[in-house]
Amino acid sequence: MGIKKWQKEVDEWAGQFAVPYWSPHEIMARLMEEVGELAREVNHRWGPKKKKAEESEKELADEMADVMFTLLCLANSQKIDMNGAWERVMKKCWGRDNNRYKKK
Amino acid sequence: MGIKKWQKEVDEWAGQFAVPYWSPHEIMARLMEEVGELAREVNHRWGPKKKKAEESEKELADEMADVMFTLLCLANSQKIDMNGAWERVMKKCWGRDNNRYKKK
Amino acid sequence: MGIKKWQKEVDEWAGQFAVPYWSPHEIMARLMEEVGELAREVNHRWGPKKKKAEESEKELADEMADVMFTLLCLANSQKIDMNGAWERVMKKCWGRDNNRYKKK
Amino acid sequence: MGIKKWQKEVDEWAGQFAVPYWSPHEIMARLMEEVGELAREVNHRWGPKKKKAEESEKELADEMADVMFTLLCLANSQKIDMNGAWERVMKKCWGRDNNRYKKK
Repeated sequence: MGIKKWQKEVDEWAGQFAVPYWSPHEIMARLMEEVGELAREVNHRWGPKKKKAEESEKELADEMADVMFTLLCLANSQKIDMNGAWERVMKKCWGRDNNRYKKK
Repeated sequence: MGIKKWQKEVDEWAGQFAVPYWSPHEIMARLMEEVGELAREVNHRWGPKKKKAEESEKELADEMADVMFTLLCLANSQKIDMNGAWERVMKKCWGRDNNRYKKK
Repeated sequence: MGIKKWQKEVDEWAGQFAVPYWSPHEIMARLMEEVGELAREVNHRWGPKKKKAEESEKELADEMADVMFTLLCLANSQKIDMNGAWERVMKKCWGRDNNRYKKK
Repeated sequence: MGIKKWQKEVDEWAGQFAVPYWSPHEIMARLMEEVGELAREVNHRWGPKKKKAEESEKELADEMADVMFTLLCLANSQKIDMNGAWERVMKKCWGRDNNRYKKK
């Protein structure tokens, strides 16, 4: 059932709170925070930044899942089913963007 | 099969190119670009920014799917299965973060 | 007079409007948008992304100045003088962070 | 002398290291990290996120100065004088964007 299962899982968790979802702007700020943590991890692994001792060894995959989680909160808060949008993205890939890069 | 299907779809599209995936830093820059477009859409819908005529009416959901797509490119480029990370996020939600907000 | 002159210039422009400054969350969303445009420019110059014809040749410096402008809007909206914060940053550089990287 | 003094201060500090400036992509990732920390602070002050005890009370102004510092690293690494770009931004404000919002 694709992403719908994850959207439902987020909804079950969020649904227990008095305010299940923040406002779109508040979720966007959180999304930026999570993307920033992912960017830090990328610099740790492939870049020059020396790790500070107090920084925990966070995994790249976990930071990505945090970004995904925040994104699904925004989707749920607006009752958006990501499946439809995903199909449009893939269609755009195979259409408009299909000759954008050098083929094998 | 959860997100795995989407990861495979991305891989099928990217796999036709000479360089299927950019470097992690290049994908991160693209992710920022996509998050920025999503932020603009949020300001258009719920904020004060007057739409410029030349800006196409992009849908919120489509911008979110673009972010998702870029994220899955990063995952695929590192052979990360997002399912495992997702389970850890949900576990963290129900554990550590379960009393973070006021309950219903 | 350092950054104060720029903050004043922003204030003179913004001051002519009925709502001189957006809310902090709205300015943050705009900041993400501007940082995203800067990231795109970085990918254009040093990365793999092929420029689309319809994308105007925006200069790196101009994208950076847009980020700066948005940042100063946030500062002004909160009556923050950036000079004080800047001094603290430089002090942190020469103190805590001074042995973070390999010296010449 | 406007921003030039700050750019010089950054250069004096960075100049003592074997690698004074990271690559543009690495600086972009750091910029995302700093913008993310600023976004978190905005959510702390004006949003719904309950502060975790272990999160230090970082000041909004300091986060903004960190963003500024990272931006000036990018400028310096490319030998960009921000003054010229700033003048173009202000010109754009008073020109193209001058009737974008409701006047007083």
